[in-house]
Amino acid sequence: MVTKLALLGAGRIGKVHAQAIASDSRAKLVAVVDAVAEAAQAIADQAGCKVSTIDAVLADPEVDAVVICTPTNTHADLIERFAKAGKAIFCEKPIDLDVVRAKACLEVVRQTGARVMLGFNRRFDPHFRAVRKAIEDGTIGNVEMVTITSRDPGPPPASYIKVSGGIFRDMTIHDFDMARFLLGEEIVSVTAFGSVLVDPEIGKLGDYDSASIILTTASGRQAMISNSRRASYGYDQRIEVHGSLGAVSAENQRPVSIEIATGNGYTRPPLHDFFMTRYTAAYAAEISAFIDSIVEGTAPSPSAEDGLIALQLADAALRSASEHVTISLV
Amino acid sequence: MVTKLALLGAGRIGKVHAQAIASDSRAKLVAVVDAVAEAAQAIADQAGCKVSTIDAVLADPEVDAVVICTPTNTHADLIERFAKAGKAIFCEKPIDLDVVRAKACLEVVRQTGARVMLGFNRRFDPHFRAVRKAIEDGTIGNVEMVTITSRDPGPPPASYIKVSGGIFRDMTIHDFDMARFLLGEEIVSVTAFGSVLVDPEIGKLGDYDSASIILTTASGRQAMISNSRRASYGYDQRIEVHGSLGAVSAENQRPVSIEIATGNGYTRPPLHDFFMTRYTAAYAAEISAFIDSIVEGTAPSPSAEDGLIALQLADAALRSASEHVTISLV
Amino acid sequence: MVTKLALLGAGRIGKVHAQAIASDSRAKLVAVVDAVAEAAQAIADQAGCKVSTIDAVLADPEVDAVVICTPTNTHADLIERFAKAGKAIFCEKPIDLDVVRAKACLEVVRQTGARVMLGFNRRFDPHFRAVRKAIEDGTIGNVEMVTITSRDPGPPPASYIKVSGGIFRDMTIHDFDMARFLLGEEIVSVTAFGSVLVDPEIGKLGDYDSASIILTTASGRQAMISNSRRASYGYDQRIEVHGSLGAVSAENQRPVSIEIATGNGYTRPPLHDFFMTRYTAAYAAEISAFIDSIVEGTAPSPSAEDGLIALQLADAALRSASEHVTISLV
Amino acid sequence: MVTKLALLGAGRIGKVHAQAIASDSRAKLVAVVDAVAEAAQAIADQAGCKVSTIDAVLADPEVDAVVICTPTNTHADLIERFAKAGKAIFCEKPIDLDVVRAKACLEVVRQTGARVMLGFNRRFDPHFRAVRKAIEDGTIGNVEMVTITSRDPGPPPASYIKVSGGIFRDMTIHDFDMARFLLGEEIVSVTAFGSVLVDPEIGKLGDYDSASIILTTASGRQAMISNSRRASYGYDQRIEVHGSLGAVSAENQRPVSIEIATGNGYTRPPLHDFFMTRYTAAYAAEISAFIDSIVEGTAPSPSAEDGLIALQLADAALRSASEHVTISLV
Repeated sequence: MVTKLALLGAGRIGKVHAQAIASDSRAKLVAVVDAVAEAAQAIADQAGCKVSTIDAVLADPEVDAVVICTPTNTHADLIERFAKAGKAIFCEKPIDLDVVRAKACLEVVRQTGARVMLGFNRRFDPHFRAVRKAIEDGTIGNVEMVTITSRDPGPPPASYIKVSGGIFRDMTIHDFDMARFLLGEEIVSVTAFGSVLVDPEIGKLGDYDSASIILTTASGRQAMISNSRRASYGYDQRIEVHGSLGAVSAENQRPVSIEIATGNGYTRPPLHDFFMTRYTAAYAAEISAFIDSIVEGTAPSPSAEDGLIALQLADAALRSASEHVTISLV
Repeated sequence: MVTKLALLGAGRIGKVHAQAIASDSRAKLVAVVDAVAEAAQAIADQAGCKVSTIDAVLADPEVDAVVICTPTNTHADLIERFAKAGKAIFCEKPIDLDVVRAKACLEVVRQTGARVMLGFNRRFDPHFRAVRKAIEDGTIGNVEMVTITSRDPGPPPASYIKVSGGIFRDMTIHDFDMARFLLGEEIVSVTAFGSVLVDPEIGKLGDYDSASIILTTASGRQAMISNSRRASYGYDQRIEVHGSLGAVSAENQRPVSIEIATGNGYTRPPLHDFFMTRYTAAYAAEISAFIDSIVEGTAPSPSAEDGLIALQLADAALRSASEHVTISLV
Repeated sequence: MVTKLALLGAGRIGKVHAQAIASDSRAKLVAVVDAVAEAAQAIADQAGCKVSTIDAVLADPEVDAVVICTPTNTHADLIERFAKAGKAIFCEKPIDLDVVRAKACLEVVRQTGARVMLGFNRRFDPHFRAVRKAIEDGTIGNVEMVTITSRDPGPPPASYIKVSGGIFRDMTIHDFDMARFLLGEEIVSVTAFGSVLVDPEIGKLGDYDSASIILTTASGRQAMISNSRRASYGYDQRIEVHGSLGAVSAENQRPVSIEIATGNGYTRPPLHDFFMTRYTAAYAAEISAFIDSIVEGTAPSPSAEDGLIALQLADAALRSASEHVTISLV
Repeated sequence: MVTKLALLGAGRIGKVHAQAIASDSRAKLVAVVDAVAEAAQAIADQAGCKVSTIDAVLADPEVDAVVICTPTNTHADLIERFAKAGKAIFCEKPIDLDVVRAKACLEVVRQTGARVMLGFNRRFDPHFRAVRKAIEDGTIGNVEMVTITSRDPGPPPASYIKVSGGIFRDMTIHDFDMARFLLGEEIVSVTAFGSVLVDPEIGKLGDYDSASIILTTASGRQAMISNSRRASYGYDQRIEVHGSLGAVSAENQRPVSIEIATGNGYTRPPLHDFFMTRYTAAYAAEISAFIDSIVEGTAPSPSAEDGLIALQLADAALRSASEHVTISLV
């Protein structure tokens, strides 16, 4: 049996998910919705499916599930409407930039019993999964310290920054989720520092472009996150976990891994230029996990609850950085 | 316009090509042929196309091109028949194990003017292409020495060895083509050494499982090839080119690239377990190049002629190894 | 002209310095002092010099300089005595565990105009120096974020912990100095987290064995330090600096750098087992810099003042970790 | 007891050995001999020993052993004279460029029972020793294929080429010895190819500057050697051994191992610029092994016989390259 999906939102990340859906033979894209007709049509043409509207998809009995890739401020509304319509839902992070709104949305999800999976794609990266598996296998003993480096190749435009919710809700939110994925214990304190070192425009908008964060758990485990909105050498995505018996790390990936040696030294090419190519396999595995959950009737993971917790950590980081205090979450 | 393809042969490599075809939106698989009906049906189901026969495909005006993945001893006949039928042809290496038969086939190709591309997939590996590009860009100056390491994870069964044509025609043939791809000059001498170190059964069949080969060109460029039918650590596929201004190399690839550090040291996982996963991107790029050639009307590369030359080098290697002499090709 | 040195303290680090002195042909060890006669004699035999006493060295006109490797609680007194005696002084870190005592000692150093160099050996590691040079050369642009990983192979005995001054004064002090060496700006805030994850005995003594620290500068530069008293894989010593134009890093060093590939993967040996072998070249370069300073009459670096600042940062870290607050240093 | 050594030859390699001797506390340099008085004096000053003459050293009862670093054409004579004088002898490779002369010299060594060790320094490199140890430990099973890459940073002057004996006797001789060290079986065939790709002057002198060599053993083990007189990226010295259970390799070494990441990629510095810095540890370990042999009364290794065999392999390579035939050694 093939799961039939509608894609809501045909922008950059919508295209990524359309491609991921095409790679899973158990999934079929049947409708695409976007305010920009050409964007929707382009994906529909490639997928061999129809262009549609939110209302039509809601009413369409053929549609089993939706993949929400619309702007963030529509996520909570769409989750609620499709939850009530009985569709399975995959939604890009975050649920909403406002924790109160996100909580209300979760309440609807609980009441309807809807299947909702949040788009923390990095959990599905094969390298990061292998890190997690090494932990689960006991290879490094008890987890003690998690180190996450996450730097974008370049800062987004001011228009994006304005609606992004700030670096912690937009960018670090992935790292908060990854820290939880790896620490094996809930986070009890957040301490964050933010600076404007990359782009003064970002500072004028009241945001940071460089951040260092320390998270702790009840038993004293520690996580460190290093973020920057700019890395000249590409999309810098590394994790490292130190435990009582050893350590495990996932190094950066590059599209081409040759090495050129000359009188100037040994040079390897820059990293992937952004998430679309860096996380291609992760996006495919993520959609497959969503299909698994539907087909096997299991709880989707990461859940809407995971999305809420990451958002709460982001809020705590923002408060910590603004007020220069450590935020306790217990 | 979409190019419509028929797949002849639904075995291991046939599946790889079916998957590659599915990844190019300009190509569409319309028919699958195999003596084993279930094998053909499985691919046809996935691709949403029909199961067919050689004769039906030959007569089918809808079919633009064929991808030949049948046993080696059928390649030359099929190339000839489909060349006469005016279809574009992609054929897995080799054309035939017999040079005389291969030459006769090439004659038909020439007479019919058929578009024939040979399946030397490694030329399309993104890492190896980047090596070639570094050479073309002049980054390493004049090419002087090429080193190719090519080791299979484990020896094939005796049944395969028997019909393989021997290690030089079956395995080294890829390295001969790669050496030509990188040397930038035709090979004028072949010296090969073969041993039986891995599996005595291979020796009983008159074949080698371990080989070292030196190739030279007219201007004195040198290539070294190291082959083994067994590498405990995975599918070992490396190339390195040393030139007047520097060197360029492509290291091994692995499916997961984490590193685990314990008291025993730092360990990375084994390499890919074989060509299906190691060369996934190469197979996709290869089929795309075939489609490019059809769509743009350009000469396919590698050509049937390239296939013949690689076969002649393999024959020379076999003679060299048997008679303990250097074989001159000029 | 050869600079004649007396070594005060013939323990583990004393031996390291004796070896370093032997490797500089401009330096000559002429006397060794230690409460344990056999320890002093062993080094004296190797160096071909005499065993002596503090008083005799103070009075010895032949001695140009002393290398102080005695227990920490004697450092300030010895610095003061030898400063007054007009000898050049190289002293292992720290000056004292107490900032007030260290400041008083610095006052004597200032009044006497004595040449005092502090033993922050890592500044002299060739790899770390190359990192600093890349910064000075402008290769990575403006420094933005410094990441230091520093983990000992295993926890010291309780007897050492008791007199160590705690993890921040004993271990992180090196990282504070390294952060200053690389940040290019003074540190204005310190936030530290400490846990007991390695050895409960350390916790009973009121110390931590695992720590994460964030440092900031006036312009918003950030440094992160990760410390553990135990790393199963060896002495983990890495630095990384991210700047506006790029990044530079120094990876771990190992005594033997082979790689073994088997069915279990690719394994490199563990790291150096501790500072004596990891920093051999650094200790030699450090003593040479001390000799340079004497011979050329230049100011020694790192200075006693650098030692005091590192100690103040350690004190701030301790207060931060205890009180769960960020300590401002301005 | 300290072993007293005289150094014969105070050129480039003589200085390397003087430094190595200084690093072993069981050895003491007591005399230096060189036709160039200043060269001898410089080393004597550093070592605190006297300048002497061959005859004086021969007659000096204080001298236990000599280290021969004079021009190649004096080696055999000096070995014979000092063998007769009852001194232990360490001699740089080769014994002589002429096999007949070398054999005669060995006859004298045998008759006198002199302790003679040949200077194949690479056997003492800690990384290469670890490769050998992995073989001895059975970690990679039976050795099947050895790959040696050995490239000098730049070609020597014509004056050196003229007296060098040619690339095989001067440069590959180290690789022949290394192949024997790693193969675990004697070599029974040599096939060599030589080209002039680097410097036409070398060709005019009848020598090659680029060479590829295949060696085989009786059981079918294979070794491949790749040589060039020029590598823009530094002194390229790698070995790799493939066996039935796995593989072991020693990668290149560099003096500084930082990595700089920019928009152009990730760059590590070039390799060591030549043997003096690449093999510092090897030269020290080599002299220590010579002292061990003297102190413990054990047979020196590599022996004069090892030197002869490497020379015979070089001669075979030269004949193979000139006549385009495989040379059988049995």
